[in-house]
Amino acid sequence: MEHNDHKLLTTSHQIIKVDENSCREIDDLVVRETALTVYVNSKEVATLVCSPWDQKFLAVGFLCAEGILKKRENLKTVELDGERGVVSIETTSDLDLTDSVILKRCITPSAGRSGTSVHFSADSALPQPVNSQLKIKVETALKLAADLQERSCLFQRTGGVHNAALAQGEEILIFQEDIGRHNTLDKIHGQCFLEGIPTDDKLIIFSGRVSSEILLKAARMGVPILISRSAPTDLAIKLAEDLQITVLGFVRGNRLSVYAHRERVIL
Amino acid sequence: MEHNDHKLLTTSHQIIKVDENSCREIDDLVVRETALTVYVNSKEVATLVCSPWDQKFLAVGFLCAEGILKKRENLKTVELDGERGVVSIETTSDLDLTDSVILKRCITPSAGRSGTSVHFSADSALPQPVNSQLKIKVETALKLAADLQERSCLFQRTGGVHNAALAQGEEILIFQEDIGRHNTLDKIHGQCFLEGIPTDDKLIIFSGRVSSEILLKAARMGVPILISRSAPTDLAIKLAEDLQITVLGFVRGNRLSVYAHRERVIL
Repeated sequence: MEHNDHKLLTTSHQIIKVDENSCREIDDLVVRETALTVYVNSKEVATLVCSPWDQKFLAVGFLCAEGILKKRENLKTVELDGERGVVSIETTSDLDLTDSVILKRCITPSAGRSGTSVHFSADSALPQPVNSQLKIKVETALKLAADLQERSCLFQRTGGVHNAALAQGEEILIFQEDIGRHNTLDKIHGQCFLEGIPTDDKLIIFSGRVSSEILLKAARMGVPILISRSAPTDLAIKLAEDLQITVLGFVRGNRLSVYAHRERVIL
Repeated sequence: MEHNDHKLLTTSHQIIKVDENSCREIDDLVVRETALTVYVNSKEVATLVCSPWDQKFLAVGFLCAEGILKKRENLKTVELDGERGVVSIETTSDLDLTDSVILKRCITPSAGRSGTSVHFSADSALPQPVNSQLKIKVETALKLAADLQERSCLFQRTGGVHNAALAQGEEILIFQEDIGRHNTLDKIHGQCFLEGIPTDDKLIIFSGRVSSEILLKAARMGVPILISRSAPTDLAIKLAEDLQITVLGFVRGNRLSVYAHRERVIL
C-alpha cells in the first residue's frame, strides 16, 4: 500500500465551513473516489467504484470473490493503466466468463417470508463450508478490533472510508481502506492470491456492517472467524451458520456479541 | 411504509453477549436483509440486496435511477411476490433494456490521474444538470439533518441501516430506511414516481457518505440540494459541480460544510 502518500488518499477542496459563530472559506481534505474498469482477456466484466490505490489487488480479489478466478496458475498477467482507470487481466482460457456468472448475485431468496432461507443461483458461485479448528480468545478479538480502529486514521480525518484487516493470532498482517465496503475485502483477497498468502488459517476484522455479501467474501477466502465493530444482518448470520463461519459483532471496548459458531470462541 | 410492524424490520436471534463482568445468552434484535430479483417484461435485470419493505418502490426507483424507466406512462404494472423475493414489472415495449444499459455503471474515468475527470459510458445514462432557483437557509439544513437523525430509531437499535428523506421547506415528506445505502434513495425515487410526486423542487437528506453513485441518484431525481450528515467524495463533488447540485456535508449539531453550488445556500 502507498498509504504514506496522502495525496493518493485525499485531495484538497475549497469549502465553506459554517458553525454557530463563523462562516469561513477553507481548504479541506476530501476523500478520493475513482472508477476502475476490469477487463478479463479483453472482455469488460465490471466497473468498480473505489479508492485509488492497490487497484490490481482489488481487480484480482473481485474476480476471486466472484468465483471466477480460482487458481493462481490460471492468472497470467495483471496490468494497471492508472491514467485510464483500467485493469487488464489475462488468464488461461478455461475460465467461465459467461455473463450469467458475472451478472448474477450469488444469493436469491427461496421460500419463506423470513428471507433467511436462501439458495445460490449458480452452483459455481457457492463457497464451501469452512472446515477449521481455529479458536479465538475474547481478549484477542477485542485487541484486534481496537488495533483496526487505531489504524483507521483516514476515516477519522475525512469520515469517508471503511477498513478491514487480515490477522493471525494477535497480529494484523494486512490492512486495507477503501470508500467501498466490499472493496476492502477484495483488496485483501487479491493481495493474498497474488502473493500466495493462505487465508483459511486467519481472521478478518471489519469496520462495517456484516451483510450477506461481506459474509460471502469471507467465505470465499475460507476465513473461519469474522470480527466486526458493527452488526451482522439476519441473512449474514444464516449464511455464517451454513458456511461454518464464526461471527463476532459489536466488538468495541470491552464488549462483543457472538452471532454464529460460538465453538471457536474461548469465553 | 410498514414501519410500525417491527417484525418486518428486525428479527430476534439468540446471541452470546460478553462484557468485562459477564457472559450471557440473550435474544437480541438483528436487522433483516433479503434479496429482491427484478424482472422487466419477464427478463431478469438485477438482484438487489435490501431491507424487506417497500420493495415495489425499490424496484421502480432502481429502474428510474438507472435511466431505464423515464415516464410514468411507460409503466404498466408492478407485482411483488414477497414469498419468492421477486418484483415483476411490465412496461410498454419501447424501453431500452439491452444488457449494456443495465450492466454498465454510468461513470468511467477518462484522462487524468486525479480520477475526477469523468465521462458517461452511455449518453442515455447521463442525467441533465439541475436547473433550479431553490435556496436553503443554514438553520433549515441543520433542522432537517436533526430530524433525520431523530427518526432513525432502527439504526440506533441495531446499528444496521442507512436512511434518507425527501423534504420540502422544513418538512420531511418521505422517510426511508434500508440496509443498502443506495436503496434508501431508490425507494424514495420509486414512491415519488408511482405517486406522481415531483422531486425537482425538493431536498434530499441522507445519513451516509455521498459517493458518485448517491450523487447520480439525486441528479436523476432532479433534486437541487443534497444534505448529508457525512462526507462527500471528490468525484461526487465534481459531479455535483457539473450537474449543478448543491452539496452540504457534515451537517450535524450547529455545523455544516458547503461543498458545491453555494449559491443556493443562504449563509
